[in-house]
Amino acid sequence: MALTTIGFDADDTLWHSESHFLLTTDRFCELLDPWTRALRLQGPSTGDSSQRELIENELINIERRNLQLLGYGAKAFTLSMIETAIEVSAGEIPASAIAEILRWGHELLNHPVELLDGVTDTLDALSGSYELLLITKGDLLHQESKIAQSGIASIFSGIEIVSNKTAVSYERVLHKRSVHAKEFLMVGNSVRSDVLPVLELGAQAVHIPYHVTWALEEHDSTDLQAEQFHSCHHISELPALLSSLI
Amino acid sequence: MALTTIGFDADDTLWHSESHFLLTTDRFCELLDPWTRALRLQGPSTGDSSQRELIENELINIERRNLQLLGYGAKAFTLSMIETAIEVSAGEIPASAIAEILRWGHELLNHPVELLDGVTDTLDALSGSYELLLITKGDLLHQESKIAQSGIASIFSGIEIVSNKTAVSYERVLHKRSVHAKEFLMVGNSVRSDVLPVLELGAQAVHIPYHVTWALEEHDSTDLQAEQFHSCHHISELPALLSSLI
Repeated sequence: MALTTIGFDADDTLWHSESHFLLTTDRFCELLDPWTRALRLQGPSTGDSSQRELIENELINIERRNLQLLGYGAKAFTLSMIETAIEVSAGEIPASAIAEILRWGHELLNHPVELLDGVTDTLDALSGSYELLLITKGDLLHQESKIAQSGIASIFSGIEIVSNKTAVSYERVLHKRSVHAKEFLMVGNSVRSDVLPVLELGAQAVHIPYHVTWALEEHDSTDLQAEQFHSCHHISELPALLSSLI
Repeated sequence: MALTTIGFDADDTLWHSESHFLLTTDRFCELLDPWTRALRLQGPSTGDSSQRELIENELINIERRNLQLLGYGAKAFTLSMIETAIEVSAGEIPASAIAEILRWGHELLNHPVELLDGVTDTLDALSGSYELLLITKGDLLHQESKIAQSGIASIFSGIEIVSNKTAVSYERVLHKRSVHAKEFLMVGNSVRSDVLPVLELGAQAVHIPYHVTWALEEHDSTDLQAEQFHSCHHISELPALLSSLI
């Protein structure tokens, strides 16, 4: 069965996202540094880099704990930052610091969309031969707003914003469009969200790593079946890779 | 053209929602009462009830200001409560109070779905004669989770979660399903979201008020064209009302 339909992840595949979250995490760890009483109580300080690591780990733990309730996206991240700040400071963090965190949350929702290099040319090159779908997860309003701002929405024959990328959610998207799994290939930066659930359906996937990966998108390497999916370093390699598949 | 498709709003039309937000707003105003320094600076206190009103008005103003960026739903509401608490207390609110607000946010996302009286029977009665759609706005994950918990998802031939209910978003839903506006009727508790945009498309609407209406769902009465839409007090009146339309 020939490949007819290519799905693209959005955040960190078509445009920058995680780099903004990473920068915010850096500012967050710096902001919290004077108020890490709860962490300090757990043991003697072991230097600056460890202190930062402890704060970041606590944030990731709280994000993981909140994932089922809050889901993905900048609003969930902001709420988890505030919760972490209160926990890590043992309630000592002042309201002015929380106000700063709220401002960062607004900034994350407001930053302009910056397409990754080569995205427009690659989509243009592929759109003559394949149906292109944009399949993204996270905050409905924020994803819609980024898609609208991106200037590339019209190249996609369908846009799907899902709350989580599982085999079931991909199956629903394909079923709705009467696309058979064997005709479908997904492109994205997350092995956990863009590759493994798609392979589970019997479809193909291309992994294009972004320069940073969010801890909760990291995958257990034992899940990996590297022979079953393709990788490239850059989205511009995609047309040649797809030609080689035929 | 005969009516073929009935759309139902979810929050406050099929299940309770605003009553939970209202209860949280009450607790919020009570929590903030001792820290309303910024409000007190604006003028002399004019008694308990006015103080509460001032806090609530400030919350509504901040929700309105954040609407375009944060959208609808419990996460946006929680972030706006935190922002209001910091503003109204002129930065005096302690972290323990913010932690309390975060817990209320989690509770709002976690409370069990309680169907309104008569919903199941009414949907059952209508499902033989019409295609039923569920059309709701707000937080993608939270709406999905409420729909799954409600036990009534399977009665709908389609479920649409949109970021905002405008004529454009309704048009998109109808177009996707090849439903002509003249064949469509929307049922919901919000004149602003469930009635006016639907009338704009040339479709019909039934307004069923909930006992409380969120300030940002209130409509300007000059928008109202009462002769163009129907009202009932209770969802169980719907089958008879629809029969009378033919």
